Amino acid sequence: MKRYEILAEDLAMQIERGVYRPGERIPSVRQASLQQRLSITTVLRAYVILESRGLIESRPQSGYFVKGRAQPSPAAELHVSAPLGTSAAVDVSELVLSTLRSIARDDTMPLGSPYPDAAQFPVQRLARHAQSISRRRTRWGVIDDLPPGNPELMRQIARRYVERGIAVEPDEIVVTIGATEAINLCLQAVARPGDTIAVESPTFYAMLHAIERMGMRAIEVATHPHLGIDLDALAGVLERERIAACMVMPNFQNPLGFQMPDARKAALVDLLARHEVPVIENDVYHELYYGDARPSALKSFDRQGLVLHCASFSKSLSPGYRIGWAMPGRFRDRVEKLKFLNTLATPAIEQLAIAEYLKHDGYDHHLRRIRRQYTQQSNLTSAMVRRFFPEGTRLSQPQGGYVLWVELPGGIDAMRLYQAALAEHITIGPGHMFSATGDYRHFIRLNYSYPWSEAIESALRTLGRLVHEMQPSGRS
Amino acid sequence: MKRYEILAEDLAMQIERGVYRPGERIPSVRQASLQQRLSITTVLRAYVILESRGLIESRPQSGYFVKGRAQPSPAAELHVSAPLGTSAAVDVSELVLSTLRSIARDDTMPLGSPYPDAAQFPVQRLARHAQSISRRRTRWGVIDDLPPGNPELMRQIARRYVERGIAVEPDEIVVTIGATEAINLCLQAVARPGDTIAVESPTFYAMLHAIERMGMRAIEVATHPHLGIDLDALAGVLERERIAACMVMPNFQNPLGFQMPDARKAALVDLLARHEVPVIENDVYHELYYGDARPSALKSFDRQGLVLHCASFSKSLSPGYRIGWAMPGRFRDRVEKLKFLNTLATPAIEQLAIAEYLKHDGYDHHLRRIRRQYTQQSNLTSAMVRRFFPEGTRLSQPQGGYVLWVELPGGIDAMRLYQAALAEHITIGPGHMFSATGDYRHFIRLNYSYPWSEAIESALRTLGRLVHEMQPSGRS
Repeated sequence: MKRYEILAEDLAMQIERGVYRPGERIPSVRQASLQQRLSITTVLRAYVILESRGLIESRPQSGYFVKGRAQPSPAAELHVSAPLGTSAAVDVSELVLSTLRSIARDDTMPLGSPYPDAAQFPVQRLARHAQSISRRRTRWGVIDDLPPGNPELMRQIARRYVERGIAVEPDEIVVTIGATEAINLCLQAVARPGDTIAVESPTFYAMLHAIERMGMRAIEVATHPHLGIDLDALAGVLERERIAACMVMPNFQNPLGFQMPDARKAALVDLLARHEVPVIENDVYHELYYGDARPSALKSFDRQGLVLHCASFSKSLSPGYRIGWAMPGRFRDRVEKLKFLNTLATPAIEQLAIAEYLKHDGYDHHLRRIRRQYTQQSNLTSAMVRRFFPEGTRLSQPQGGYVLWVELPGGIDAMRLYQAALAEHITIGPGHMFSATGDYRHFIRLNYSYPWSEAIESALRTLGRLVHEMQPSGRS
Repeated sequence: MKRYEILAEDLAMQIERGVYRPGERIPSVRQASLQQRLSITTVLRAYVILESRGLIESRPQSGYFVKGRAQPSPAAELHVSAPLGTSAAVDVSELVLSTLRSIARDDTMPLGSPYPDAAQFPVQRLARHAQSISRRRTRWGVIDDLPPGNPELMRQIARRYVERGIAVEPDEIVVTIGATEAINLCLQAVARPGDTIAVESPTFYAMLHAIERMGMRAIEVATHPHLGIDLDALAGVLERERIAACMVMPNFQNPLGFQMPDARKAALVDLLARHEVPVIENDVYHELYYGDARPSALKSFDRQGLVLHCASFSKSLSPGYRIGWAMPGRFRDRVEKLKFLNTLATPAIEQLAIAEYLKHDGYDHHLRRIRRQYTQQSNLTSAMVRRFFPEGTRLSQPQGGYVLWVELPGGIDAMRLYQAALAEHITIGPGHMFSATGDYRHFIRLNYSYPWSEAIESALRTLGRLVHEMQPSGRS
C-alpha cells in the first residue's frame, strides 16, 4: 500500500470508530502533514479519497469535515437491468478477441484488461517450484496426468473448499485448462447445440463464449447490481421456455462485482432444482472478496448435484499457468470424459508447482495482501471516475474482484469511446462484449488490479475528458 | 546405441556392401566375440537381430550364413483391411481411458502405452529454458499469449516446415494444447454434429475421440498396411455418402506404421479436392522416420487450402508439455476463433521453452539419435514377436514411429489377452480401440520406444506364452 492509502485507511477507520464524528473537523492538510511526517500531496490525495467515498467534505476556507458513514450518491447507482426477453444466438468472440489484442500492446494503459496484474503475484516462487519439479521428475509423460488431474493438486483444492465450509472430496474435481475449459466442458455435459441457456444481464463474455462455441442460444435475465440475478424474472423464464442450463457468477460477477447474499444463493439453487435445470457456477473471483469472510458458493447449497462449479487459479495466483477445475456434481463422469476428449491432459508441471505452492507457501498471506490492495484500488478508481466523468455517470460498487462497471451518460457509444481512448493509448472494455443481444452499448468495464500510479490517474482523467467531449452538448 | 546394436548395424552394413555375400559364412559367435572384444551374449543378441531381419540364418552345427537382403516372411504380412461399409456413432473413449490408466501404473511394463519413453528426451534442457524464462519475464499474463500463439514458437515451427520443403508462413499456424486440441478444433471448424467423417481402418483412436466429442459419425475405409487409405474405396464412399471431412495419418500411421508414398498423398489430396471435402492430416510422428529423408505431408500437395494439418512436439520432444499446432489452410480464422473459445490460451512457459530449445539446442541431433534407436527397437521387437508368438501371427512393418501392430492367430480376443497380460504386469493396446464398429478385436498394439532390456524381452516372451495358451488347440 502507498502512504496516502494507509493514511486514508487510518482516517476512515477512525471515522468508522467515532474518533471523528459527523460534523466534526479533521486535521487540516498542513496539520496532518506535520503530524504524520507526510508530504502535502500525500495528505491531499488521502483526503480526496475520503471525500470521494463520501466520508468527509471540504468546506471552502474552513477545512475538511466528517460527513458520516460512506453513502454513495444516489445518482451514481446502477439500475436493475432490463434485458430483452427473447433468446438469441451468440457471436461476441471476435469483438472480444480483437479487444484483448489491443490490450496486449505494450504501449497502452490496460484499463480494458480482464486479467489481474500478474506483477503482484508470486510468479518467482511458482517458477522455483516448477524448476525443482522438473529436476526431480525423471520421466515426463502425459500418462501420469490423465484426467481427472494430479491427485496432490486435487487434494489441495479440496482442502481449501473444506476450509471455506464447503464439503468437497478430491475426486469430485476435474482439473482443466483454466476455468475456460471447465465452463465449456460443464456446458457441453448438460446441453446440446440449439439449446437455450439462461444467463445474467450483463453477463461475463466467457459465459457467452461457451454458448457460442456449442452453437447454443442465450436468454438474458434481469440482474440486480447488488443482489444478482432476479429470481422472479428467472422463474418467469423457466415457466415460459425450455431452459437447458443456467450460467451465473454469484461471487463478484464480472462486470457488476456483486456478491449474491446467501439467502438468494440458496433460493436460486432451490428454484433451479425444482425445474431440474443444472446451473453452471463460475466462481473464479471467490478469493478476491473485500469483506471479512470467504463467500459461500451455490455449491454450498447444492443437495441434488445440479450445481456444476467452475474455478481457477488464474485470477488469484498464476494467470499464465492456465490451471482451472470443475466440480460437476452428478455430471462428474461426463465432464471427466469430455476433458479427456477435449485436451487429453492438463500440463503436469503447472499442476505440481501450484500444489507445492499451496502446501508450503503463504497463499493466504498473498491473498490478504491482494485483497487489501484491490479494496483500496476499487475505492480510488471509483473516486476518480466520479471526479473526472460527467454528471449522470453510474457506477457499480464491487464487493470483490478488480473491475468497475461504468454506465456512460447521454447514450455515449462505448465502441466510439474505445476507439478514441485507444488513440490515446488507453484501453477500456466496451459494454458490447457483455450481451448477446446488443445491450450495454453505453457501458464500459475498467480494470483496477494495477497499483495506483500517476499514469493511471492521468488515463482516467483523459477518459473523463473524452466522455465530456462526446456528450451531445459537447464539453460540459 | 547398445554394443550389440552397433555390432548388428556394422554386420548389416557389411552384408549390404557385399563384404559377406549370400551363402557365405560369417564369423562364429566365439570368433566375433574374440575379434570384437565383446561378450558371447552381446554377439549372440546381434546375430538374433540379423536373423530376425532375414539377413542371416543359422544352420545347425555349421554356424551363421548370409541369406541376402532383408525379406520379411510372407506369411507374417498383414492384409488390406476390409471394414464394414456403413457409418457408426463413436464411443471408444471410456475403453481407451481405462486402458491408459492401467498403463500409468508404475508396476507394469508399458507395451500398451501410446506415448514415447520420455526418459530418452531432453527433459532437463527444456526445464532449464523454462527456468530462465520464468526469471526473465516479469509479468505473466495470458494476455501476451492469446491465439494464434507465441510468435517466436510459430516462427520456429514454420522454419522446420520450410526445411522439409513445405512452404509455411508463421501466421498460418495456430498453437494448441497438444495435437488433441488441434484435431478437435479442425474437425469442429469443418463439420457439425451428426455429420459423417471418413477415416482409415484401423484408425488411431485420437481421431475417433474427436468424432465422438462432437457427436459425429465415422465411416471406416479400407486401408493398405504399407500404402495407406485405399483411394478406390474412398472414392466409392465419396460417391455414395455425404462426407463432411476425411481424417488420416499419412506418415507412420498409428497403429499400422506405414508411410503413404508421395504419389498417393498427391492423389488423395486431388480426390478430396474434387469433392470439396476437407481433410484433417494428423502428422504427429513425422519426425520419427526410419528412412533417409523427412517425409512429405498432404499439406505439400494442397493447392486449395483444404488440408488441415495437425502436429505436436509430444511424440518427438516433450510429451508432458502439451504443445501442438494446427495449420488449417482456408479454415485458419475459424480454428483460431475456436481455440480462443475452447481454452483461451496455451500456457506460455512451455511455448517459449520449446522455442528456445529449437533455436539453440540440437533438436536434429536428438531426433537422429531417437530415430536410430527406434529403427533398432522396431527390428528387435518384430524379431522377438516372430520368435515368441505362434505361427499365423501377422505383423506391421513400421516405417517410422514406435508402435507395432500385431494380428493374433486363431481369433484370440485382444481384451482377454489384455486382462491376462495385466495380471502379469504387462500392458498391451487392445485392437478394440481402433475401430468405431468393433473391428480389430484380435489385434494388439505394442510400444517399442523403451530401450531394449531383459525385462522387455521377458515381457514379450510372456505375451507369446499367453497367446499360445489362448489358442483353440491350447499350447502349440
